[in-house]
Amino acid sequence: MSDAGLFEVIHSTRSMRRFKSEPVAMELLWKVLDAGIRAPSGQNTQPWTFLLVREAQGKQFIGSRYQSVFNKAFAGRRPAAGDNSASARGMRAAIQLAENMQQVPALLLVCGVRDWPFAVKEEHRVGKAPPSYGSIYPCVQNILLACRALGLGATLTTMHQLFEDELHEHFGIPDDYGIVALIPIGYPEGNFGPVRRQPVAEATCFEHWNQRQL
Amino acid sequence: MSDAGLFEVIHSTRSMRRFKSEPVAMELLWKVLDAGIRAPSGQNTQPWTFLLVREAQGKQFIGSRYQSVFNKAFAGRRPAAGDNSASARGMRAAIQLAENMQQVPALLLVCGVRDWPFAVKEEHRVGKAPPSYGSIYPCVQNILLACRALGLGATLTTMHQLFEDELHEHFGIPDDYGIVALIPIGYPEGNFGPVRRQPVAEATCFEHWNQRQL
Repeated sequence: MSDAGLFEVIHSTRSMRRFKSEPVAMELLWKVLDAGIRAPSGQNTQPWTFLLVREAQGKQFIGSRYQSVFNKAFAGRRPAAGDNSASARGMRAAIQLAENMQQVPALLLVCGVRDWPFAVKEEHRVGKAPPSYGSIYPCVQNILLACRALGLGATLTTMHQLFEDELHEHFGIPDDYGIVALIPIGYPEGNFGPVRRQPVAEATCFEHWNQRQL
Repeated sequence: MSDAGLFEVIHSTRSMRRFKSEPVAMELLWKVLDAGIRAPSGQNTQPWTFLLVREAQGKQFIGSRYQSVFNKAFAGRRPAAGDNSASARGMRAAIQLAENMQQVPALLLVCGVRDWPFAVKEEHRVGKAPPSYGSIYPCVQNILLACRALGLGATLTTMHQLFEDELHEHFGIPDDYGIVALIPIGYPEGNFGPVRRQPVAEATCFEHWNQRQL
């Protein structure tokens, strides 16, 4: 398979939230994960561990808990029937994902060592330190781009943080790891297409916050 | 310019910490930033703002403060003269960067809206909420990959967090933004090359934490 162009991939990696039931070959998933671990990490600690869930029992556990917290968090925020705005369409896809998480071929939990001493001042910290997000999310983004390049759909979700303790217990994840991202992966329903954003010039300043070139 | 392959880029994006003095055309930097903003963000809030510092005065301010906190943090951790291990070489490059930050053609501060209510429990939070790192670091990774694809060197640094308040004041960055990453960018001294990591299989488990395929 030829290697898709970086900019082409970056400009067409949309969040995909509807998936075909067709399974994904482990060969492709290895390629995706192997792209993930090429990301940088602070002092090259490589603090990630992947938990790949493809069997029904594990996916059902994640799916039912996810749907429950999703419904609570977004209760009353369902878009009106006629609303076809981008945000309404995004919300409908998010609802559809929450209702069908257990059908997605692969659910990937990206875990990271809780090694971030600077996150909360020592005297105010309670409980566990968080993972160094700057050493995990670059890996997550490599994974999303690699999926796109291989024709796989994926989306970065973090709502599992609302039931993270239960995931730890269910999957035997040790306390010294946080679960940073939940990434559903499968062949997408629907098409990849251009990623639209606010113009980059509006997000950029030069030398000082008040100095823009618009 | 042809588009470099995604996997080729991902597998050769090393942290580059030594730079030529040759300036970088704004056209390339726009291409880099425009790749950044294609990243996903929670509910598509696009919470990033870039502050690009290329003039001597701003770079000197960042460089002198960076060097000072770096020296304090890594005092006594200089590698021995004969040590040629990967970590010793990395440390030497980090020292070289800290001593020459103000010479790098472009210093990019990636800022993010402090919008992450889940990070610290309300009752324990003091001061400002952090940015949603999961909505900023994917953008940062796109930037690093885009630099590599264009032949530019870059590296993700976060040590500015130790003098973040001073950066806010100097550059007029509002309190409701955190400064997530400091990315030096320029044409690299030295070569891109394969990114070596621990084997991906060692970082992967299936269905349960204790289940690996090694």
